Amino acid sequence: MNILKTIEELQEVTASNKNKTIGFVPTMGALHDGHISLIKQARNENEIVVVSIFVNPTQFLPGEDLDAYPRKDEADKKICQICKVDYIFMPEISTMYTDEEVLIKANNNSYVLEGKTRPGHFDGVLQVVLKLFNLVQPTRAYFGKKDAQQLTLIQQMVKNLFLPIEIVPCEIVREKDGLALSSRNVYLSQTQRQKALLISKSLYSAASLVGKGEKSSEVIKNKMYDVMQTLEVEYVAIVDRNFNEIEEIQLKNSIILVVAKFGNTRLLDNIWL
Amino acid sequence: MNILKTIEELQEVTASNKNKTIGFVPTMGALHDGHISLIKQARNENEIVVVSIFVNPTQFLPGEDLDAYPRKDEADKKICQICKVDYIFMPEISTMYTDEEVLIKANNNSYVLEGKTRPGHFDGVLQVVLKLFNLVQPTRAYFGKKDAQQLTLIQQMVKNLFLPIEIVPCEIVREKDGLALSSRNVYLSQTQRQKALLISKSLYSAASLVGKGEKSSEVIKNKMYDVMQTLEVEYVAIVDRNFNEIEEIQLKNSIILVVAKFGNTRLLDNIWL
Repeated sequence: MNILKTIEELQEVTASNKNKTIGFVPTMGALHDGHISLIKQARNENEIVVVSIFVNPTQFLPGEDLDAYPRKDEADKKICQICKVDYIFMPEISTMYTDEEVLIKANNNSYVLEGKTRPGHFDGVLQVVLKLFNLVQPTRAYFGKKDAQQLTLIQQMVKNLFLPIEIVPCEIVREKDGLALSSRNVYLSQTQRQKALLISKSLYSAASLVGKGEKSSEVIKNKMYDVMQTLEVEYVAIVDRNFNEIEEIQLKNSIILVVAKFGNTRLLDNIWL
Repeated sequence: MNILKTIEELQEVTASNKNKTIGFVPTMGALHDGHISLIKQARNENEIVVVSIFVNPTQFLPGEDLDAYPRKDEADKKICQICKVDYIFMPEISTMYTDEEVLIKANNNSYVLEGKTRPGHFDGVLQVVLKLFNLVQPTRAYFGKKDAQQLTLIQQMVKNLFLPIEIVPCEIVREKDGLALSSRNVYLSQTQRQKALLISKSLYSAASLVGKGEKSSEVIKNKMYDVMQTLEVEYVAIVDRNFNEIEEIQLKNSIILVVAKFGNTRLLDNIWL
């Protein structure tokens, strides 16, 4: 496994593997089983696997947890080695950004839900993802369904900009008790960790209602708020795959989303129906 | 020579020429000797040559000459054939754009000079150029120095987004009497055409002053305004290669720019020192 730090090193790797399939997993590090599942799938499906580890400043808003964001470089390297990653790209901020930058502005659906709470967040995500895509030139790039809106906006960018890359959406990985894995789970106290189970529980209730034939978004959302009544719920939303809110569940075209807050920690979860 | 209309056709060509050098000349058609010089250079330096002909709506502001922009598809095709172009890409607008688009925002230097008169123009230029770059995946892309600010912003985008493409700036091609070639020259009446010579004349005066040791931007600009006193000059500017205005000429790092208006027609010209 090689650890690359500079643009030149990475571009050399990309150029010399032009005729191989490259699987790419962009991450902000603090790798957990969710990331590992992405890496394993990339390993299964491609000749070369590149993982990037870069806590991207442009996707954090002022006052957000950029400085506190968990960093575990040594553990991350070991995990990548065990997963037979070929290359880790770990650049400095000054390697990725200059003073004068072309900005990417995500489409209107970047201003609802997560984008409403975090205006500009997705512009920063798309900016770094586009830079990384251009550097790695992957055949396939792997993203978790947990960041559903991010995944959708990246898919739209790839389509809009005609990038010759297959975006592979990967299932959410959960703890045995249902909590969706997140690098931010480390911020939770034991009590918060326990209460956080209500998030996935609310989604299971929603799925169960839908299984019984319920289609009304309102009925489903009310049920979920019921389940999470002891939590500070930021939003519950039911959207189609383009992230437009819908009044009725459309099978194979719906995502039910929750965000709940535990102190300063926002936990996201969702289920794709 | 093949004429490609769809994304799929072009992507197939790109994929099957992965290991060849591809020279790309993006144009809005109405090809003149300026374009031909770009195409010839591309032909000399690459195994495959792709020319795009697409009048890009997103770089025209409301009220600008989008509908009136000269279109000469059949003549353009003949020119490309004579220049031994391998592929012309001539998409429809609906092929290039959907209802929901990721936008590209050029950096601050896109709001001075041309960008001041045409706010948003360069965002549209970068958007279409980025799309085309992703489709064609050229080794080298050829741009005329005449659109100096466009060239600079494209170079900055390529650097910012780590696109593995060499941008090749090409010299301005002029009529024998000095008028810089432009697809918009066809709008000029005979009288306007004659008066337009003062533009290049003002630049030659500037170059001559610099040749005699003059460094002051103010002195040079005054001389140019003198030469063009019978014209409606929109601006004269002296900038460095990053398009920051400078008080003194810096050799090998200066561009002197003029824009003059003839009725609704804006003519650009410049000289690189």
